[in-house]
Formats: sequence, C-alpha cells, structure tokens
Amino acid sequence: MKTVIIGGVAAGMSAATRLRRLDETRDITVYERGAYVSFANCGLPYHVGGVITERSSLLLQTPESLAARFALDVRVRHDVVAIDTAARTVTVRDIDAGTESVETYDDLVIATGAAAAPGPSAGAVPTHTLRSVDDVDRVLEVLADAGPQPRVVVAGAGFIGLEAVENLVARGARATLVTRGRQVLSPLDAEMAAPLLPFLREHGVDVRLGATIVGAEPGRVLLDDGGTVDAVLVVEASGVRPDRGLAEAAGLEVGPTGGIAVDARHRTSSPHVWAVGDGVEKRDHVGGEPALVTMAGLANRHGRAVADDIAGLEPSAARPALGTAVLGLFGATVAFVGWSERRLVADGRAHRVIHTHPASHATYYPGAQSMAMKLLVDPASDLILGAQIVGGDGVDKRIDVIAVAMAAGLTASALSQLELAYAPQYGSAKDPVNMIGYVAQNLAEGTTDAVQWHELPAALGAGAALVDVRTPAEFAAGAIPGAVNLPLDELRERHGEIPDGAVIVHCQVGQRGHTAARLLTQLGYVVRNLDGGYRTWLAGREATAPTLDEGVHA
Amino acid sequence: MKTVIIGGVAAGMSAATRLRRLDETRDITVYERGAYVSFANCGLPYHVGGVITERSSLLLQTPESLAARFALDVRVRHDVVAIDTAARTVTVRDIDAGTESVETYDDLVIATGAAAAPGPSAGAVPTHTLRSVDDVDRVLEVLADAGPQPRVVVAGAGFIGLEAVENLVARGARATLVTRGRQVLSPLDAEMAAPLLPFLREHGVDVRLGATIVGAEPGRVLLDDGGTVDAVLVVEASGVRPDRGLAEAAGLEVGPTGGIAVDARHRTSSPHVWAVGDGVEKRDHVGGEPALVTMAGLANRHGRAVADDIAGLEPSAARPALGTAVLGLFGATVAFVGWSERRLVADGRAHRVIHTHPASHATYYPGAQSMAMKLLVDPASDLILGAQIVGGDGVDKRIDVIAVAMAAGLTASALSQLELAYAPQYGSAKDPVNMIGYVAQNLAEGTTDAVQWHELPAALGAGAALVDVRTPAEFAAGAIPGAVNLPLDELRERHGEIPDGAVIVHCQVGQRGHTAARLLTQLGYVVRNLDGGYRTWLAGREATAPTLDEGVHA
Repeated sequence: MKTVIIGGVAAGMSAATRLRRLDETRDITVYERGAYVSFANCGLPYHVGGVITERSSLLLQTPESLAARFALDVRVRHDVVAIDTAARTVTVRDIDAGTESVETYDDLVIATGAAAAPGPSAGAVPTHTLRSVDDVDRVLEVLADAGPQPRVVVAGAGFIGLEAVENLVARGARATLVTRGRQVLSPLDAEMAAPLLPFLREHGVDVRLGATIVGAEPGRVLLDDGGTVDAVLVVEASGVRPDRGLAEAAGLEVGPTGGIAVDARHRTSSPHVWAVGDGVEKRDHVGGEPALVTMAGLANRHGRAVADDIAGLEPSAARPALGTAVLGLFGATVAFVGWSERRLVADGRAHRVIHTHPASHATYYPGAQSMAMKLLVDPASDLILGAQIVGGDGVDKRIDVIAVAMAAGLTASALSQLELAYAPQYGSAKDPVNMIGYVAQNLAEGTTDAVQWHELPAALGAGAALVDVRTPAEFAAGAIPGAVNLPLDELRERHGEIPDGAVIVHCQVGQRGHTAARLLTQLGYVVRNLDGGYRTWLAGREATAPTLDEGVHA
Repeated sequence: MKTVIIGGVAAGMSAATRLRRLDETRDITVYERGAYVSFANCGLPYHVGGVITERSSLLLQTPESLAARFALDVRVRHDVVAIDTAARTVTVRDIDAGTESVETYDDLVIATGAAAAPGPSAGAVPTHTLRSVDDVDRVLEVLADAGPQPRVVVAGAGFIGLEAVENLVARGARATLVTRGRQVLSPLDAEMAAPLLPFLREHGVDVRLGATIVGAEPGRVLLDDGGTVDAVLVVEASGVRPDRGLAEAAGLEVGPTGGIAVDARHRTSSPHVWAVGDGVEKRDHVGGEPALVTMAGLANRHGRAVADDIAGLEPSAARPALGTAVLGLFGATVAFVGWSERRLVADGRAHRVIHTHPASHATYYPGAQSMAMKLLVDPASDLILGAQIVGGDGVDKRIDVIAVAMAAGLTASALSQLELAYAPQYGSAKDPVNMIGYVAQNLAEGTTDAVQWHELPAALGAGAALVDVRTPAEFAAGAIPGAVNLPLDELRERHGEIPDGAVIVHCQVGQRGHTAARLLTQLGYVVRNLDGGYRTWLAGREATAPTLDEGVHA
C-alpha cells in the first residue's frame, strides 16, 4: 500500500508521522514544493524580529530526520502538478532537475494549505509574504541591505500583519501599517479594536486605515487615498486563500467558501483522496455552515485524524471549528473565539452582548493588569456565541476557558459556576470568567437590563436620564455628555434628584452601575445599566466618531 | 424581614451584598467575631512577605463602606454565641462592651468558616496561624522584634504552609518546614511532589519530613524524632477544620466529614437556616460523597446562591466541587484538580494514569518552561478523575482548562480536540492539554500500552527487557538500571538485539517511547511504554527510595 501526501508542513506531516506509527509496512511519500518541511510557520515573524535568533530553530525536522525516525520518503522542491483520481496517480515535477514523473498511490492526502491572497502589487518596491523560510530569508536580505531604521510597509492588519509590524519594529524598522478596513484586526468588534490604534501609534507604528496600496515607485508605495509612503520593503499580509488549484483541476469538489470540500472525515468528493489543513473547508461551530479557519492546531489535529482513517481506525469526526486565536502585540495580548457582534448582526442572529473590564488577578496583589472582555450570547439558549479579550496577562487563559465551555456546550450563565484555580497571583476568587457569567445570568434571569454603548444616543434622544454613579473625581476626569453625577454611595439619599421617566445608569466598567440599577429598580424606576460602563462607551466613541472630541469634557 | 448573617468574610459578605441587590427593603445584619470584614484572606501571607506592601490593601471593605453602599448593618467584634432555631433568635456578645443581647431573625446564614486545626502546641515559642489580619500583625511584630535572619518554623506543608514559608523567606527569615507527611503538598501524588523537595532546599528552606512538633523551650521547638529546631516563631498551618461548634450546639446536623450538613441549596437541617463556606460540606465531583473543600471561590459563589434562595429567586443548586487549586512557590506553580492517584487507590477506584512533560509554549520560541503533568482517567467511562501540574508559566491555564473539561463532563480523549488559542509565545499547535488527550485516546483505543514507574520493578522481575530509545548521550547522562540503549532512529535496523519476551521501552518523557512502542508492536513484540519516561521514573525514585542512589549511574 502506498500513501502519497502533498504538502509537508503542519497537516501533511501530522498525517505522515501518525500513519507511520499506525502502519509500519506502508510506503509513505511526502511531496513538498518548498525547500523545507515541518518548519515552524507560526515562528517566522519572530525570526524577522530577532526574537528567535537561530534560523535553524525554525526547522523542526528534515527529510533525513524523518527518514530515520519514521521511514518517510520526503521529497522537497517537488511540485505535484496534476492528480488523476481515476488512475490514482500524481504527476510530480522535480523543480531542481526540471523533470516530471508519474507516481501511483493507493491513498492520497492533499495538504497544500493556503496561499497569500493577491494583494495590490507594490511594483517597484520589493514585496514579500511571510509564509515560508524563503520569505523570511528574503525579507532579512532586504533589511540587511537597507540603511538604519529602514522604512517598511505592512499591507494588512490581521494577525500576520500585526505580528509582522511588531517584529519589523523590533528589527529597527519604521513601519507603516496599511489596511483597507476602518480598524485593525477585523475579527474583533470596533470598540474592542479601537484601543489598539493609539497603542500601535505609541509603539511608533504609522497606521493608515481605509487605505489600499495601488502602485509603487522606487523607494515608495502609492495609496488609493493619494498618499505615498516611503518604503524599502512591503510585507504582504492581506490574508490567505485556499491553495486549491491542484484539487480543482483534478475535479475535486470545491465548497462555497472556496476551500476544498470535505466531509467530517476529511474525505474529498473522490474516493481514496483526503484533503486537510488550511486549504480545506471546516464546519463552523456557531453557524454550522462551511467556513475557512486557518489555524495550525486544526491542521495538525485533522492531519492526524486522516491518518487514523487511512489506517482503518475508527475515524474521529472533525468537531466544528471555533477559530480560537491569540495574538501578542508589543506586550499586549488579544484573543478571540467564535463570532463577533458584527458577524452576528450581518447574519441576522439574535444575540446578547456583555462587556466587562476585569483585572488579570486579585487587585490587592501587585501587578494586576486590566483587560477588556466581550461575550456574545444567544438569548434563547444562553449558549456562548463568541468572546473577545484585549489586555495583557491572563488573556490567553480566559479565552481558552471560554473556548472549552463553548466546545462543551456550557451556557453563558454556567461560566459563573466554573471552579477555576485561584491564588492572588493567578486570578480572583470570582475569576473574570465567573464574573462575566454572573452578568450573563443576571441578564438571562431579568435581574438586570442593559443598554449598549451604540444604543445610548437613541435612548437619550428618547428622553432617558443618564446617571453617572461614579465618584465626583471620576466624573470630573471625563464623563458622557448629558450625564448627571449621583455617586452610588449617595443614591439612596439622592435618587429623588433623578428626573421622571426611563433611567440609564453607568459607572466606570459596569459593576457599580449594576448595584445602582438594582437599587433604583426596587425603588420603582425603569432602569438600564450601560454595559461595560464609561470605558466601553469611550472605546466605542473612539471606534466610530473621531470628530466627537468635544463630547468629552476633561 | 430580617436576615442575620454570622461571619463577614467571603461567603457571608457575598450573601449579604447579593441579598441587598435583590431586596432593598430587608434588614440585613452581619456579625463578625474578628475586627475586620471582607478582608483579603488569601493575601495575608503576601503581606508577611512584603509583596503586598500596604496593610490597608488587605481590607477590601469596612463596616462604614458596606453601610454606605449596601445599607448593611455590619458589627465587627460581635460573637454569636448561641442560636435558637425554634425562637429564631441569636445571642450576640459584643466583645468590647462585654454585653450580650438576643436578636431575632427571619432568615439566618451561618458562614463561620473554618478554624486552624489544633496543631501540636509549641509552648514557649510564639505560635500563630495566618487566618486573620490580627494573625499577620502578630507575626510581623515577632519578626520585627527578632534580629536579622530570624529562625522560624512552619508546621504543615500544605498550601498555606508553603505560602508561609515562601513569604517568611522573602521577609529575611530562615525557615524550617515541619510536616508529619513523607512529602510536601499531600494532595499531590508522591512522584509529582518529589521534585519540590530539592527545589525548596535550593531556596534555603530546611524541610523536615515525617516530623511533628511535640513541645518547645524558649527559642526552640522539639520534634518527635528527637530533633530540635531553633525558632523565634512558629506558624501553625497544619490544616483547618469546620468551625461548627455554634451550629452543632444549635442542634443542626453535622455530616460525616465534620462539616455542617446542607443540601444543594445550602439549607441546613433546620428551616430558615442556611450555612455556607468553609464550615460546610460540599458534594465531591468525582466520588459524589460529602467532602470538605475550603476554597474562596466556592465560598463566594455559594454565598451568592444562598442570597438568591432567601430572596425567592429560582435557586441554582450547588455543583459538585472539583477542588481546583493553584500555588505559587518561589516562582514555580503547582496546581491540581479532582482526585489524586493515592486517593483513587485508597478508594479502590479503577483508574488510568498518564504523565507528560510538555513545554509551556512552542520550544522554538524562547522562554519555554517545562512542566510535569499527570492525568487520572476512569478507564470505563474515559472521564477525567483528576490532574496535577508542576511547572512555571502556563500551569494555571492548563489546570483551568482541565477543570472546565471535568465540570462539563468531557472525556480525557476529548482533551485532544479542544481548540485552544495558539501563538508561539502562549502555547503549541498541539497544546499540552491536547497532547495528554492524545495519550489518553491511544490508551483508550489500545493503540498503546503503558507501564507506570512503580510497576517497573515487578515487570523487570518477571523478565521483561527494558529498552532505552534515547540517544547514547542521554543514556550516558543517567539511565535506569538494567536498560539497554537502542536509539529510536536505529530501532528498525537493530531491533533484533532485543531479547525474546516482553519488552518495555522508554525515552526521556514518553513521546519517543510511544513511537518505539508502535514500531515494535507492529514488528510482533509485546511492548509497553514507560509512562512519563525517564523523568517520571526519576521523580518516582526520588519519592520512594532515597537510599537507592546507586541505582543511577552517572
């Protein structure tokens, strides 16, 4: 029996090594178009930045080491140019020799991954992606040839784009980030991404929102807004798309997302042909529909599952993909899972939104860092639809906890019941995840009612009174236009000062507002608490209305 | 309506504030025997160590702040000395005034917590616990009066004992840790705790295992093994027991563990009387039986639930307790959840054991730290029974992920499918939790068979061959007696050198051993892989056989 695997990085190599562990007698051949297999693709930007100092650290395995340990026949710089599913053959081009040969297979695994989406060409300025070791070599060559503090442009403000920016800055470059979007990190909602903009600028990054590279002259790129940016290098990070050409030419079915269509066992439309990794459609956890989720963890896991299937083990069906992701950015951490509010709105799905601003650990213990959390909840089922967290320490932990809760089908209210490890250096007796669960429970049970930052103008326009229950000092340092200040601890005495009609209360982050809302509700008021408090309102304002500076008195 | 709450720290104060948010009209009185309410009890050791510099940081609320915000009547230094459940009254002693009064209640909440178990009296040496702000004041007074580098003894090597040791050392003391046990941290299994012993000694701590304080003379304590230890101070941390005297005297039912018996809604055996917090029995997640689990998170959560019940909300039944816990120790992190192997063995429960030694994040990214993980699995259901992790970065994250999986009823194999956030600073494409899930799955499916470190002598005695598949350099640096070295990458060529009969393979941590076991199994051998590899074997040897030094050749 002979298995051919096309692509020798995450998914392909996981399939190959697992298959060998299951079947010692099978011929296993891996064809990889590039010069390296099994390299650390998620580490590439950090070698540019000098964080990973040794280039060799990126090369986890070689054809030789894989032959010795797993008896794999690994051919680098071998490009599979055609598949004949009827004859069960592949046509392989030896790139260096310039020759082609036809090889048979009993089982075929396509793990060609994704390729950089065609960005706007930068023409006269060297332009590279950060997808391979070769890419990194070329980027470092350009930087080595440039003078000190070379000017570089990164096109695209997603995960790879922001990792590229951070590492180019670490390498001494002056970076300009160009993105078509109105924000960085489009998987985040606007008010969650907004604080990252001044943060990037503090770190010396020139951010150009709503801009696209349309051309280049030697030493500078041209933007569609008429601007130009001096640059010795463009790093293209506008996104990736499934590398499906080979599969498509072989007549394999392609799904609605443009990824190779597979079933839960990663079988393509053709017998004896599996496909796996970034080139393949996954099923989305929230919506159930096909989706492109290009994560290394899924690629590894599904590659391994394909090997089980080929070897005749009971195949484990791929679980729907959550798309859990995390990004380090100049010491901050950004993470998300599931769907954003934007996506839920676009899809017309009912949802409940919760913003909190907890500390990474007990505030009485030094070093606690503030984070912004957002939870999206299905109001009918109370199931978790998504989460976003921006902060520092402990962000990765909380997104993982929520991802497990989502995968296990726990409700948002059940987050309050999770028994998470507590000591004051690590968390709080009521962990941030517990607390957001309590808010969810209060909303689900009707104990409290919330208004979102973007709903505030309409609510105030309809005549609601806005009561800021923070201290006078907090109020003086910046307040929402139209708010009256009635500190929480005086509210029992002074609530008579609130005008008749609907009331919106708010504090800094939402917690004192909740206590105020409960008090006023019991006193007969119709009250809503501004979700996430002043801090979320401020982030929302930054996200949407850059000209509203007069709105905040200082 | 009048609610009386006895005890004003975690559980009692959570009940009081939640109840006020739900019911503005109710009289709520809190009696606290000590001088402070709502203080940061988990932070007390860190004020001793000077990590939390301001004593005021420990005092989260005062009677005045609670009156202003929540209209609570909080009486500190008021000791409830009797409850009359028939008359619905409590007898309260005003400690400072020396007077007693009888107060009525409609609903009563007992949150008296736990008290230090009676340790062996140290007599002539000042002895304090670390349970209250007063305790901390007294400890700091003793240390202030002592000379530089005072000698101190900590009795008890549980969480509080180890936190006390760390902080006394931070304060400049020379600490001796005295414990009856054969190891520190008895919730851990022996081989998981063993590496902490040299680690503590490296940090200057004198550890006396298997010893008990039996008396004292001025300036030194006497141990039952005939030893003496110079000491100006003894910190008593031998454990706590439910402070149930008041409840017992009132005729309330006490459970088999010695905690106040309550139902899932925390109702005691008497109507209108709830009990909550460290003084109360919980239901154990793994065994389902009553258990004492003294965790701040549970106390807070259950206090809140009691308020819901009193206020007439749909009460949420307390979930069984996992006992998730974490400890920081001289920069290391120790965490566990559920049951240990020792407890499973004692209970006669079938279980499967898995040890791994993963890195905190991708090893190609600098700064990865090694951790030791142990997972206990029910072989029939594949459910997770417990986990233990010892390491540095990322230990708290992994125990939380496993705790959520346990609470949600995920199987051990399902850990492999969790979609955890990955970037190379934060984890691995196959996270340590995923990896231990894969091992569980391989064992559950019979893809691999394991032998535990403590089963090795019997297996070798029965004639099994022991094959060390590490490199010759690793073998030369230390090997298991009787092992022959056949490096994994030469095993296909050289397996003929293995003698007939059963084979046990091992590597450093278990992963190469797994590959070797799969290879040899397919070549017809009957093979088991030494679980956790050389590293777990070494830890087990340290745990059990301190005289076997000749067993390791260097």
